[in-house]
Amino acid sequence: MALRATLDFLLYDWLQVQSLTARGRFADHSRETFDAVLDTCERIAREKYAPFNRTVDTQEPRLDGEKVVLPECTRAARLAYAESGMLGAAQDYAIGGMQLPYVLEAAANSFFAAASISISAHLLTTGSASALMAHGSALQKEVFAHNEFNGRWAGTMCLSEPQAGSSLSDITTRATPDGDDPLGPRYRLTGNKMWISAGDHEITENIVHLVLAKIPGDDGRLPAGVKGISLFIVPKHLVDVHGALTGERNDVALAGLNHKLGWRGTTNTLLNFGEGRYPVRGAAGAIGYRVGEPGRGLQYMFHMMNEARIAIGMAATMLGLAGYYASLDYARSRPQGRPMEAGGKDATQPQVRIIEHADVKRMLLAQKAYGEGALALNLYCARLVDEQHTGGPQAADEARLLLEVLTPIAKSWPSEFCLEANSLAIQIHGGYGYTREFPVEQYWRDNRLNMIHEGTHGIQALDLLGRKVRMEGGRGLQLLAGRIEACIEAAAGTELADAAAQLAGALRQALQATEAAWATGRPAEALANAVPYMQALGHVVLAWMWLDVAQATLRADAQSPANVGRRAAARYFFHYELPRIGAWLRVVRERDMTCAEMDEAGF
Amino acid sequence: MALRATLDFLLYDWLQVQSLTARGRFADHSRETFDAVLDTCERIAREKYAPFNRTVDTQEPRLDGEKVVLPECTRAARLAYAESGMLGAAQDYAIGGMQLPYVLEAAANSFFAAASISISAHLLTTGSASALMAHGSALQKEVFAHNEFNGRWAGTMCLSEPQAGSSLSDITTRATPDGDDPLGPRYRLTGNKMWISAGDHEITENIVHLVLAKIPGDDGRLPAGVKGISLFIVPKHLVDVHGALTGERNDVALAGLNHKLGWRGTTNTLLNFGEGRYPVRGAAGAIGYRVGEPGRGLQYMFHMMNEARIAIGMAATMLGLAGYYASLDYARSRPQGRPMEAGGKDATQPQVRIIEHADVKRMLLAQKAYGEGALALNLYCARLVDEQHTGGPQAADEARLLLEVLTPIAKSWPSEFCLEANSLAIQIHGGYGYTREFPVEQYWRDNRLNMIHEGTHGIQALDLLGRKVRMEGGRGLQLLAGRIEACIEAAAGTELADAAAQLAGALRQALQATEAAWATGRPAEALANAVPYMQALGHVVLAWMWLDVAQATLRADAQSPANVGRRAAARYFFHYELPRIGAWLRVVRERDMTCAEMDEAGF
Repeated sequence: MALRATLDFLLYDWLQVQSLTARGRFADHSRETFDAVLDTCERIAREKYAPFNRTVDTQEPRLDGEKVVLPECTRAARLAYAESGMLGAAQDYAIGGMQLPYVLEAAANSFFAAASISISAHLLTTGSASALMAHGSALQKEVFAHNEFNGRWAGTMCLSEPQAGSSLSDITTRATPDGDDPLGPRYRLTGNKMWISAGDHEITENIVHLVLAKIPGDDGRLPAGVKGISLFIVPKHLVDVHGALTGERNDVALAGLNHKLGWRGTTNTLLNFGEGRYPVRGAAGAIGYRVGEPGRGLQYMFHMMNEARIAIGMAATMLGLAGYYASLDYARSRPQGRPMEAGGKDATQPQVRIIEHADVKRMLLAQKAYGEGALALNLYCARLVDEQHTGGPQAADEARLLLEVLTPIAKSWPSEFCLEANSLAIQIHGGYGYTREFPVEQYWRDNRLNMIHEGTHGIQALDLLGRKVRMEGGRGLQLLAGRIEACIEAAAGTELADAAAQLAGALRQALQATEAAWATGRPAEALANAVPYMQALGHVVLAWMWLDVAQATLRADAQSPANVGRRAAARYFFHYELPRIGAWLRVVRERDMTCAEMDEAGF
Repeated sequence: MALRATLDFLLYDWLQVQSLTARGRFADHSRETFDAVLDTCERIAREKYAPFNRTVDTQEPRLDGEKVVLPECTRAARLAYAESGMLGAAQDYAIGGMQLPYVLEAAANSFFAAASISISAHLLTTGSASALMAHGSALQKEVFAHNEFNGRWAGTMCLSEPQAGSSLSDITTRATPDGDDPLGPRYRLTGNKMWISAGDHEITENIVHLVLAKIPGDDGRLPAGVKGISLFIVPKHLVDVHGALTGERNDVALAGLNHKLGWRGTTNTLLNFGEGRYPVRGAAGAIGYRVGEPGRGLQYMFHMMNEARIAIGMAATMLGLAGYYASLDYARSRPQGRPMEAGGKDATQPQVRIIEHADVKRMLLAQKAYGEGALALNLYCARLVDEQHTGGPQAADEARLLLEVLTPIAKSWPSEFCLEANSLAIQIHGGYGYTREFPVEQYWRDNRLNMIHEGTHGIQALDLLGRKVRMEGGRGLQLLAGRIEACIEAAAGTELADAAAQLAGALRQALQATEAAWATGRPAEALANAVPYMQALGHVVLAWMWLDVAQATLRADAQSPANVGRRAAARYFFHYELPRIGAWLRVVRERDMTCAEMDEAGF
C-alpha cells in the first residue's frame, strides 16, 4: 500500500527514527517493534475503519430520547483501537503504556485518519488524559487518566461556548466552590459548552469532561480575560476514589447535536452544565474537580497544544492522501479521450487511460506534492516533540522553539492545501467524483473542518506572525532559517543545486518580509496580512521539506521508481508552487492596508 | 438588496445596456421594461426559490416505483418561472417571446441562480428549445420548441454516456432509420445516456429529449469521431403534428438517479433509450426525429454553447455572491474577539463584531472581488452575445471572436474562484459555517460542480490555449488585447494610473507566454500547462474588468460608499490577485514538462 511505503521511507530513510531506540525511554524498542505497531494499526484501520467511512457519513448520530445513537461500527472500531493499546501508546510501561515515541504514535494513528477521520476522533481521549497526566493530582491521574488510557472511559475537552469560539477569554461557565474532596477541590459548574466532540454517547460506561470555567471573585463577578480561566474534571457519571461508578448521574445535559458538512461520524454536541436537568446530591450544578491551580486552566488545557495541532495537520494530510490514492486508482483505470498529436486527435484509435493526459498528471502530482509534503512536515514536527521530551538540554530547547514556529504551519498548511488536493481528486473523477458513489467528495467535505477547529486559519496566522516568529528575540525563526540553510548547503553540488538556490532566495524573501511587516512596530499594520504571510512561510517550509526529502532519495536507492517519483514531486513543488510566495509576500512587505482599512459601508 | 444594486450599476452605469433600445429588435424596450423584468424575477426568486433552497437539498429526488418524486416547491417554482415568460425571454414577439436582450435575460436569471441554483436548472429547457429554433424544421419548432418556451413541456440535452463524458466522439447510442414522418426523418434509438439533468419527472406533461446519436453506416458500424454524430428529438410521450399527446409512451426508461454532493434539487438521471422497457408501435427502440442534416449533431447542439457556458459561469458567480452576502450579514452581527492594540488586547472591553477584524475584511473583500468581478465578466460576455446578434457587421464579427476567446474564461474562472469565495464564506462563519444550520456550506457544495459540467476545467483550458487564442491567426487574442489596451489608455492620468500600468505589464507577460508556449509548435509542450495558462489569462481579464468598472465609478457618483467600495475591490484585485500570474505563467513560458513527463510508476 502506497501509504505504508511512504511512511517507511519518511520514518526510516529520511528521519532515521530507529536512532531513537538508543535513548533510555525507548531502549526496549527496535525497528521491529515500531513496525509491529504500524502493522497492527494498518490492519485495524483497514478492517474496522475504512469499510465504514461512508456508513458513518450517511448514518449520522441521532437522538433517541436522551441518548445518542451511533452506528454499531463505531463501537467496534473504538473497541479494536482501545484493545491495541494505542490510547496510551506514549505512556509509561508502569501504567500499561507502550513508551512509544510520539513520531511513531503519530505515524501509526495516520492509518485511522486515512481510513475514516470521523470515526477516529476518539483520539481526543488521549489528549484529554494526557493533560491530566501533566497537571492532575496523583488520584486524578489514577482515577481518571488511567481509565481513559485503558479504554474504559472516553474523554472530551470542553472549551468553546456559543458566544465564545476563538475568543476563550469570554467564556462564562461559572465554577462555584463546593467544598473539599479526595478527587480535588470540588465545584459546582453552570454554563453552556459548544462544539464538544464525542460529548455524549453510550459507547463507554463514562465520559470524563475536561471543562474550562471561571471561578467568580468575592464580588460574584467572573474575572476578565484568559487569566481567570480554570480547569475542571466533570465526569458524566460520578465515581469514587477507586474509579467505581457511584450510580449518580452528574448534572451534564445533552442540549443538542450539531449537523455538519462532514466529520459526521463524530458526535458533535452542545452540553449544558448544571442547568438542573439532573440534580445531583440534592442540588443543581454539575460537580467538577479542579485541576491544579486556579487561573491556569488555559495553560493546562493547551499543554498538549502542539500535539493537538499536529494531529489536525495530520488529519488534513491523510484526507489529502486518501483522495490522492483514490484518484490515482481511478486515473489508472478510466479510459477517456486521446492524446493531442501534431495532427490533432485520431478518433479511430482506442481511448487512453486518463492518467496519460498531462493535466491529469498535473493534478496527481500536485496532490502528491501537497500530501506527501504535508506528511513529511507533520512527521518532522512529531519527531521534534520527541526531541523536546527526550533530547539533550540544548537539542530539547531548540526543538521546543522550532515547534513554536512550525506548529501553526503544520496545522494550517495541510488544512488549506490538502483540501485543494481533495478538490483535484474530485476533478480527476469528473462527474463521478461529484457523486456520493465515490469516496472523494466525502474527503473534501471532511477536510473543510480542519481550517476551522483547533484554532482557525486566522488565529494560526496571528499566532505565527504576531508571536512565534518574534518570541525570544526572534530566535525561533533564526533557528528555522539555520535548519533550512543547512539543507540548502547540503544540496549544493548535487543535482538539486538549482532547487537549493531557489529556496535560498525564497527564504531571504520571507525573512525580509517578516522584518518589513514589523518595521513600523504597529501590530495593526504588521498583522493586516498575517494569513498571506503564513501561506508564504508555509510554502518555504514545504519547499525545505521537499528538498530534504529529495536529498534522502539520493542517499537511498536513487533510481527506484518511488524515489524518482519523489524527486518529481519535489520538482513540481519548486516549479509550480514555490513561485507563489511572490504574490503573498508582496502585501506583507508593503504592509498593504487595502483590506484592513476597508470601510464597512463599501462592502 | 446588494445584488440588485450591483446589477443596476453594471448594466446601466457600466455597460450602458439602455443603449440597446436604439436597435430595431429591442425598440419596444426601455429602461422601464428592463427594470420590470428584473423586478419580477427578483420577486419570484425571493418568494418561490430562496425559501426552498435547503428543502431541495435535504429532500432529494427519489424513485417511487418508476416515477421521480420531487418536493412540491419545485413544481411551484417552475410554474412561477414559466408564467413569467422567462423561458422564451429572448424569442420573437410573434411566438410569444419578449425579444429581451440576452444581457438582460442573463441578469434576470441571476436572481434564480442566487436563490437556488438547483431549482433553477430548468433553464436547460431554454437551451434545448433554442437549439431547435436554430436548426429544426418549421414543424419541429412549432410542435416542440414552442411548447417548451410556453412552459407546457420541459426539455433536456442528452450528450454524455457512461463511457463517454468529455469524449463525445466515443458515444455509441445508435439511431436506425425508421421511415419518414411529418415531424422529421424518423429513427429508432438505442443506447444509454448519463448525467441527464431533469431527465425524468412529473412536473410537465411531456419531456423533449434532445439526443446525440450515431447513424450506422452500410456496414452496420457506427462512424468514428464527432463527425458521425447526429441530433434527434426524442419525446418521452409521443405527440402528433398538432402537439397533442397520442397516448403512446416512448421507449425511454429511467435507469437510475445520481446522488450528488450538491445541486440536489436537480434530478440527475441515467436514461436508457430503446431497451424495450416501453415497446412503442409494436417494437423496442425509442422513436426520434432527426434535426437537420446527419453528422452535424454536435454543431447543432453546441449552437448555443457560448450562452450555455456563460450560464455556468453565472451560476458559479451567483453562488459566490450568495455566500458573500451571507457571510457579510454574519460578520456584521457576530461579536467575537477584540482588536490587537500596541499593548495587546483588553479583555475588559466588550467584544467587537468580527467585521472589524482585518482578516475578516480580507476574506470579505476577496469574495467581493471574485464575485462582482465574475459578474462583470459574465455580463460583458452576455452583452457581446447581443452585439453578435444585433450589432453592425464588423461589431458583430468582433463580438463573435471575442466571445470565442472569453467564453472558456467566463465559464472556468468563476467556477474556480467563486468556489474559493464560498470557502471563505464558510471560514468567516467559523464552526457555524460548517453546520447545515447556515447556508454557506451548501453554496460551497453546489459550486463544486461548475468546474466539471459543460466542459471541465481541463477541457476549457485546452480549448483556450489550443484553439481559441490561435484561431484566425490569433485575431481573437489581438482583439482582446486591443480592448484591454484601450481601457489601460483611458485610465492613464487618473487615480487608476498605477493599476493601469500594472495591467499593461501583466498583459504583456500573458501575450509573451502565449507565444512561448507555442514556440516549438508541439501541442504536447504548448498544452502541458494549459490550466495554469487559463488561470493567468483569467486573472488578466478580471483585472481588466475591475479597471474598467473602477473607471465607471469615477464617471458616476465617485464618492458614494458603494463606488468607493468597488474601487477598494479593484485595488484588492490588483494588489493581492494579479501578482499571482507570475507563478502560473512561469511554467507556461518555460514549457515545463515536469507533469507531462511524469512516469506513471512514480506516483
